[in-house]
Amino acid sequence: MEKEKTIQRISFIGSGNVASHLAEALVRQGKQIEEVYSPSPEHAKTFAERWKCRVVNRLSDLQPQVDLCLISIPDDSIKSVADTIPEIKGIVAHTSGITSMDVLKKHKRHGVFYPLQTFTKDRRLALEKSPFCIESNNQSDKVLLMDLAGLITEKVFEINSEQRRYLHLTAVMVSNFSNHLYHLAHEVLESKGLDFELLLPLIFETANKVHDIHPHAAQTGPAKRKDQKTMSKHLEMLTDFPEYKKLYQLLSDQILDAHS
Amino acid sequence: MEKEKTIQRISFIGSGNVASHLAEALVRQGKQIEEVYSPSPEHAKTFAERWKCRVVNRLSDLQPQVDLCLISIPDDSIKSVADTIPEIKGIVAHTSGITSMDVLKKHKRHGVFYPLQTFTKDRRLALEKSPFCIESNNQSDKVLLMDLAGLITEKVFEINSEQRRYLHLTAVMVSNFSNHLYHLAHEVLESKGLDFELLLPLIFETANKVHDIHPHAAQTGPAKRKDQKTMSKHLEMLTDFPEYKKLYQLLSDQILDAHS
Repeated sequence: MEKEKTIQRISFIGSGNVASHLAEALVRQGKQIEEVYSPSPEHAKTFAERWKCRVVNRLSDLQPQVDLCLISIPDDSIKSVADTIPEIKGIVAHTSGITSMDVLKKHKRHGVFYPLQTFTKDRRLALEKSPFCIESNNQSDKVLLMDLAGLITEKVFEINSEQRRYLHLTAVMVSNFSNHLYHLAHEVLESKGLDFELLLPLIFETANKVHDIHPHAAQTGPAKRKDQKTMSKHLEMLTDFPEYKKLYQLLSDQILDAHS
Repeated sequence: MEKEKTIQRISFIGSGNVASHLAEALVRQGKQIEEVYSPSPEHAKTFAERWKCRVVNRLSDLQPQVDLCLISIPDDSIKSVADTIPEIKGIVAHTSGITSMDVLKKHKRHGVFYPLQTFTKDRRLALEKSPFCIESNNQSDKVLLMDLAGLITEKVFEINSEQRRYLHLTAVMVSNFSNHLYHLAHEVLESKGLDFELLLPLIFETANKVHDIHPHAAQTGPAKRKDQKTMSKHLEMLTDFPEYKKLYQLLSDQILDAHS
């Protein structure tokens, strides 16, 4: 029986948080990073030293003999970069949540390799439980990309562009927006000489309980209880933070609505 | 040397989520729940059967020979209940975040026993890492309450009423408001036939990373990157959810401000 084809040689366009985390995970699985191009040559150099690959200074110089070229750059630039790079032997895929696969259609074999996770600089991350959302314009490349993702994580999903952008939208809600709430709590506590660390067990339990309970059933607190007196007190306490007061009001109104 | 006095016999006013979780933790430490009073006699009965204690039908019938009477009822009712119950031998304490200790001042020995956590019905909870915020009008009872809390958790803090209400306010932000974001993500995904479970690893990592990184440094996403194009796309996707669109706009504006 012929040996199954797998993705082995990979080039990266982009050298930011997502690219770095993916490169690390792929190298750990024995994959070879061949080349990197980055709009920021300094970043490309650091990336290349770390993953022992060549730096390419012009997109047109990318070598075509790779199995996969991963485009991991700001969403706005993906289409123009994809249109600029030479035809390659393998698959051209981007790692974006919001960008349609179609922006890569200049390339005969194309797809999406989207890790649904928040990537923070210099923070080690266990990707093995993070969902990877895979898409391709053809069945065999979809299998190749899913197999590759399957080396990194136990959670590989076939997700089309329309579904993916809704995952991306809701990811912003549960991650960036929740993190902003952590940030403003930090600020309010700091103004009172209190340590944000006091809230960590609560933050942890809140994130944990929706693993077992529907978020609607998991809700607690003054708005859920329709406790207007406590909400009024809280609003008054936010007098020095008018923006946060507005946010408190809007979120409380929505929770009241959801439980009316 | 004389044996140190400790709190052993406890009565509860209230039989809701907080009361039930505390009773469970206290019984596990060998404490005796003597009596329970609840505005809802049905709830009181269930509580009494579970923790093998008597039900009291009128506040005036509460027996005075307990070491601690814990008032765990809606904030609005704490003062009137405290004013109604007879004088007791031990400490009268409430478990509220937002309520000042002073509402208990009719009682010679009084204090606060506030667990900073989100309590959900029928959900088992490990309290041993949850902060307990303790306050009392006298030093010796503060020690007694701190010792009692120390049996349940490794995190016992002396927190005054003014600090406590700010902890309560920020607890609402990081817990109830984050949970509301989970809820709306659930709703949006459901409307597209997608499974909320896909977001759980992201929710988990978002909550986890602020254990190590300041929330400001932990921020990621389109607003942090000033990626107006992605934000516009997201807003357009929320056309069917006008309230969530308003929330998306407000939160994104605040993140933009925080990173400008």
